[in-house]
Amino acid sequence: MTETAQQYTIAVIPGDGIGKEVTPWAQRALEKATEGVAAFDYENFDLGAERYLRDGEILPDEDLERIKGTDAILLGAVGDPRIKAGILERGLLLKLRFALDQYVNLRPSKLYPGVTSPLANPGEIDFVVVREGTEGLYCGAGGAIRRGTEHEVATEVSINTAYGVERVVRYAFELAMKRRKHVTLVHKKNVLVNAGDMWQNIVNKVGEEYPEVTHDYCHIDAATIYMVTEPSRFDVILTDNLFGDILTDEAGAVVGGVGYSASGCINASNEYPSMFEPIHGSAPDIAGKGIANPTAAILSAAMLLRHLGFDDAAARIDAAVELDIAENGSTPRSTDEVGRDILARL
Amino acid sequence: MTETAQQYTIAVIPGDGIGKEVTPWAQRALEKATEGVAAFDYENFDLGAERYLRDGEILPDEDLERIKGTDAILLGAVGDPRIKAGILERGLLLKLRFALDQYVNLRPSKLYPGVTSPLANPGEIDFVVVREGTEGLYCGAGGAIRRGTEHEVATEVSINTAYGVERVVRYAFELAMKRRKHVTLVHKKNVLVNAGDMWQNIVNKVGEEYPEVTHDYCHIDAATIYMVTEPSRFDVILTDNLFGDILTDEAGAVVGGVGYSASGCINASNEYPSMFEPIHGSAPDIAGKGIANPTAAILSAAMLLRHLGFDDAAARIDAAVELDIAENGSTPRSTDEVGRDILARL
Ligand SMILES: CC(C)[C@H](C(=O)O)[C@@H](O)C(=O)O
Ligand SMILES: CC(C)[C@H](C(=O)O)[C@@H](O)C(=O)O
Repeated sequence: MTETAQQYTIAVIPGDGIGKEVTPWAQRALEKATEGVAAFDYENFDLGAERYLRDGEILPDEDLERIKGTDAILLGAVGDPRIKAGILERGLLLKLRFALDQYVNLRPSKLYPGVTSPLANPGEIDFVVVREGTEGLYCGAGGAIRRGTEHEVATEVSINTAYGVERVVRYAFELAMKRRKHVTLVHKKNVLVNAGDMWQNIVNKVGEEYPEVTHDYCHIDAATIYMVTEPSRFDVILTDNLFGDILTDEAGAVVGGVGYSASGCINASNEYPSMFEPIHGSAPDIAGKGIANPTAAILSAAMLLRHLGFDDAAARIDAAVELDIAENGSTPRSTDEVGRDILARL
Repeated sequence: MTETAQQYTIAVIPGDGIGKEVTPWAQRALEKATEGVAAFDYENFDLGAERYLRDGEILPDEDLERIKGTDAILLGAVGDPRIKAGILERGLLLKLRFALDQYVNLRPSKLYPGVTSPLANPGEIDFVVVREGTEGLYCGAGGAIRRGTEHEVATEVSINTAYGVERVVRYAFELAMKRRKHVTLVHKKNVLVNAGDMWQNIVNKVGEEYPEVTHDYCHIDAATIYMVTEPSRFDVILTDNLFGDILTDEAGAVVGGVGYSASGCINASNEYPSMFEPIHGSAPDIAGKGIANPTAAILSAAMLLRHLGFDDAAARIDAAVELDIAENGSTPRSTDEVGRDILARL
């Protein structure tokens, strides 16, 4: 660390399973890519399934407060089949996204040369999904009456606000300006007319401020078709929380597996730290074997650096990953081998 | 028509665009496949975009009442880009599904030999999606306040009842008994915990009555991955209204295009007529050229016959379609050529 190096505090949540194995490589990539220009202090947080199984804690208030004081968050993966679906998701992952107002869920999809897509003719795939992260069906609004009886009624409420939609729409148009200048709104406005109209109207309004950016619209069902038949048509996909969840997993599959995809949960107004993570899960089936691929975690480090303003360092990581994949393709390597191979190119 | 032939009244809604071109072939297939055992009277309904543009009517009450008096409905396709999204969908298609309590939306997906899938290694694809048709986010519950202002809030409410879920779950297990005895529940129960828990609990409960049927669970996001990487894993997919909408379009793409997929909106308790239709839309771009493929419409006729109890006749149509595709593959043919070729094999 030189005198001019900027100092950052990163909250590290390795989480469970392979999360713990890949996260150190994200940290090493962070450091190597910014040698001399940035220095990182890490605050480790023991959060996730293991912690919960051990002492019943999911996200203690004091941890959340400490996380709020950091500059950014690196997350590995969270989850364990022994825990009922929803507990960690809502108590930890979504709680962080909501408490830190991470309203842009940024998910690039790129088919790297050397990676085999399940599509026969994938074409050039390089798009980014801008998924809203703090509204829609993810609010936790809803409930159930007469639980477990034949008269049970369960509801889920999607809440959407002009405030929440406009800020993510604006982010998508700004991003499109740096890319191929094309935004595709994905929704289901022919059925979800209340939310759909609001999204479309705001896209139309904000779109007027970006005359160079073209925008079109695609129903979520049609979007899942294009994702398979013509993914190269997409540049920036703009969509709500649930549709974004669905579409980015399909996108991950189409670019050869979620192992090559990273994601950022971004508070674009910088009131709170943003969070970066590989898209893959904790993969209990391969955990502990040292064979998890750290590529997505390393790509999440690049996203973190870009968010902090280190565009060159981020681009170097991306390039190193791209080179590594081009050369080694899908040759089986250990976690450490892949990590070392990528870092060697940095 | 022999003396023993059963007489049925079919409501025919050709609709718009290519809907009008393919529906007559569905009718011819109906007749040819049941010669001597069934006879059909048709009641034609002028409903869809053209009617709406002409006189502003979408689904007059008297039409709905007449439709209720028929034995089944053949629908072509409805839609026109000049009409705002949502008007015909909610006013006609969904209105029919809800008014006729068509709670099972049945959508088989099969990769026919001779059809090219966009997947490099599709494997054997042959599954059925059982999509709930009268609940969830499709109820039209929701609204908006402060429309068009920066303080707008728009909601969409997913309403799910034990009554509505149990009947479709039961249908899925019954169907699985006639197939490979495997049901996959698709939901997002880690986030939509209220509705998700109810679905899972009812599947567990009903599942106990079908010990021969195995059932598992898959999040909607993971399901879109499997649909691309391993679609052969699915036998009967059971899911809610919105997830079913999304997944069946992706499935249609994976089996080589929605041109080979038909769908039934079924009132399985037979209080009201069920409705059968190709999955494709009105395709204004190719309408009027005589080149629309009537295969999906003809397959919807087979579904209608199966619903009325004519299993053999339905199987003959399916077999004729399969033979036709195997022999002619994707050779460009006119609507009438394909129709004639399929009927010739009946
Ligand atoms: C784990 C789950 C809550 C989460 C989501 O639904 O957002 C995940 O699927 C994702 O895409 O990040
Ligand atoms: C047209 C639309 C209302 C409909 C739906 O969303 O159900 C369609 O996409 C379908 O799948 O039948």
